[in-house]
Amino acid sequence: MKRFSKLTAVAALCATIPAFAQEVKTYPAPGEIIAAASAREWVSIAPADLLVMDLAPDTAGKPRRVVIQLMTAPFSQGWVGNIRKLAAAKWWDGTAIVRVQDNYVTQWGDPTEKKALPDGLAVVPESDYSVSKKQPTGGWTAKTMKSTAPKQKGEYGLSQPLWGWPIGQDASHIWPTHCYGMVGVGRNLSPDTGTGAELYTVIGHAPRHLDRNIALVGRIIEGMEHMSSLPRGTGALGFYEKDEERVPILSVRLGHEAQDVAAFEYLSTESASFAAYADARANRRDPFFISPAGGADICNIPVPVRRKLSK
Amino acid sequence: MKRFSKLTAVAALCATIPAFAQEVKTYPAPGEIIAAASAREWVSIAPADLLVMDLAPDTAGKPRRVVIQLMTAPFSQGWVGNIRKLAAAKWWDGTAIVRVQDNYVTQWGDPTEKKALPDGLAVVPESDYSVSKKQPTGGWTAKTMKSTAPKQKGEYGLSQPLWGWPIGQDASHIWPTHCYGMVGVGRNLSPDTGTGAELYTVIGHAPRHLDRNIALVGRIIEGMEHMSSLPRGTGALGFYEKDEERVPILSVRLGHEAQDVAAFEYLSTESASFAAYADARANRRDPFFISPAGGADICNIPVPVRRKLSK
Repeated sequence: MKRFSKLTAVAALCATIPAFAQEVKTYPAPGEIIAAASAREWVSIAPADLLVMDLAPDTAGKPRRVVIQLMTAPFSQGWVGNIRKLAAAKWWDGTAIVRVQDNYVTQWGDPTEKKALPDGLAVVPESDYSVSKKQPTGGWTAKTMKSTAPKQKGEYGLSQPLWGWPIGQDASHIWPTHCYGMVGVGRNLSPDTGTGAELYTVIGHAPRHLDRNIALVGRIIEGMEHMSSLPRGTGALGFYEKDEERVPILSVRLGHEAQDVAAFEYLSTESASFAAYADARANRRDPFFISPAGGADICNIPVPVRRKLSK
Repeated sequence: MKRFSKLTAVAALCATIPAFAQEVKTYPAPGEIIAAASAREWVSIAPADLLVMDLAPDTAGKPRRVVIQLMTAPFSQGWVGNIRKLAAAKWWDGTAIVRVQDNYVTQWGDPTEKKALPDGLAVVPESDYSVSKKQPTGGWTAKTMKSTAPKQKGEYGLSQPLWGWPIGQDASHIWPTHCYGMVGVGRNLSPDTGTGAELYTVIGHAPRHLDRNIALVGRIIEGMEHMSSLPRGTGALGFYEKDEERVPILSVRLGHEAQDVAAFEYLSTESASFAAYADARANRRDPFFISPAGGADICNIPVPVRRKLSK
């Protein structure tokens, strides 16, 4: 931990040692595997699948942009559809971050809880928290579950990165999991499932007990630090108690309707490099490590996402 | 998530429904179980086992105190001994927080990396990252592993809260685990294990691949928000690049040598209430939840710690 920058340089160096130097067999670190992945292993994220949230600038006047990748079929498409309508209606403009609870969530929406919602939002059933493996919705079926990463079995059952997302599963269903940076839909008591107008992101250890109990609709792929480093709220559950504590939300737009939006891509969870990356996350053998764990939970194998490299 | 404050009130209400109302059987939330635990289920933390770190006040002039509970025998006592010496020598006074990497760690120590260490620090071997079950050090043996919480099996093997700490284990050894808020010892490349002068705390998803690869020496029990909400560093690995970005550390003292230190206690991991709490964390059945997870990873069953109630 002390001088990771130097370590990275050492590891990069070691990875280039020629194969005939058998005595010093070394292994690349996960970051090196990502950096070495070929261009065709990366998948472009459509601008229309981005949600771009501009917060008020920080105290130094620096802009704060948060980019969310919306969840793709077959997951949570009812709520995602609502979110598209809310963004088109500019509903979030003038709302705020209302709650920051340490080791849990940062939540945003209308502090007054009185702002009228746009017409036409769907009421989504609890059954949509997960997807049947047998139900071929959104073009996906069990046959397309071709992740190169092995399934891991843990305290929360089976999991595997699939189609670019962290996914839990049992014999009959699959569902997205509550990892760091994932975005979910606030709701009241069941059977309410929330509209999507009130959203949160995970800023601590994965609260996996929320899986299949709340809808997940995406993940933050850039600007997460603007959400995770906010002062914690001092009210119950981390709600801010005073108006001036809330960071205002200037605007939320879909990626193809926002200004100056970068292009993003993720490392395919069906690629050979992803397999090597997942294995390296589970079995760290780069020079810093002496005891590989032999496994990794789904939230410790985050799907790599980056700005598209200019060519 | 939307109105947890109201939900808590509802849950508290439901928990008081008399037993004859069988149709509406309800379950207390984990926080309610903790609140209802009896006084004798709480264990006092000795002031000498606290490390009190006072950071420079925030921009509004508000004090920032971070209280760390040092790890107790049989774990990491070589490094903990060094930390006691460093605190006694006031070594950290005038040092700073040097690194904040999102979803990973906040790290503190000497930014110059040139400050002389006090005499007499131990060089601790890598073998001390874990403890043999057969080796009865520090008064603990396998026979005293009497947690009321069941062992959980996950991606990182077996784990169980023990003696007030999150503990991993295999057939022969036990070791503390890298959960949110745990404090560890920065080091360079193995076989260096670090002195304890450079410390970090986990501010994101548990980096369990560090277990048995770095020494853990304690956990933050109060003031965690002062570490987790800091601006992320913009240098490699989250190191701050400019002097003025680093929050100065005013002083670090052992609890019995610091001013105005609160008294703390933790819920015994051998108590009946802890068993109920661990079960509730793994099987949320309070009114908000519809799908209990059926398990919880060790970092999702944090040992409750609080200021001692005045009598």
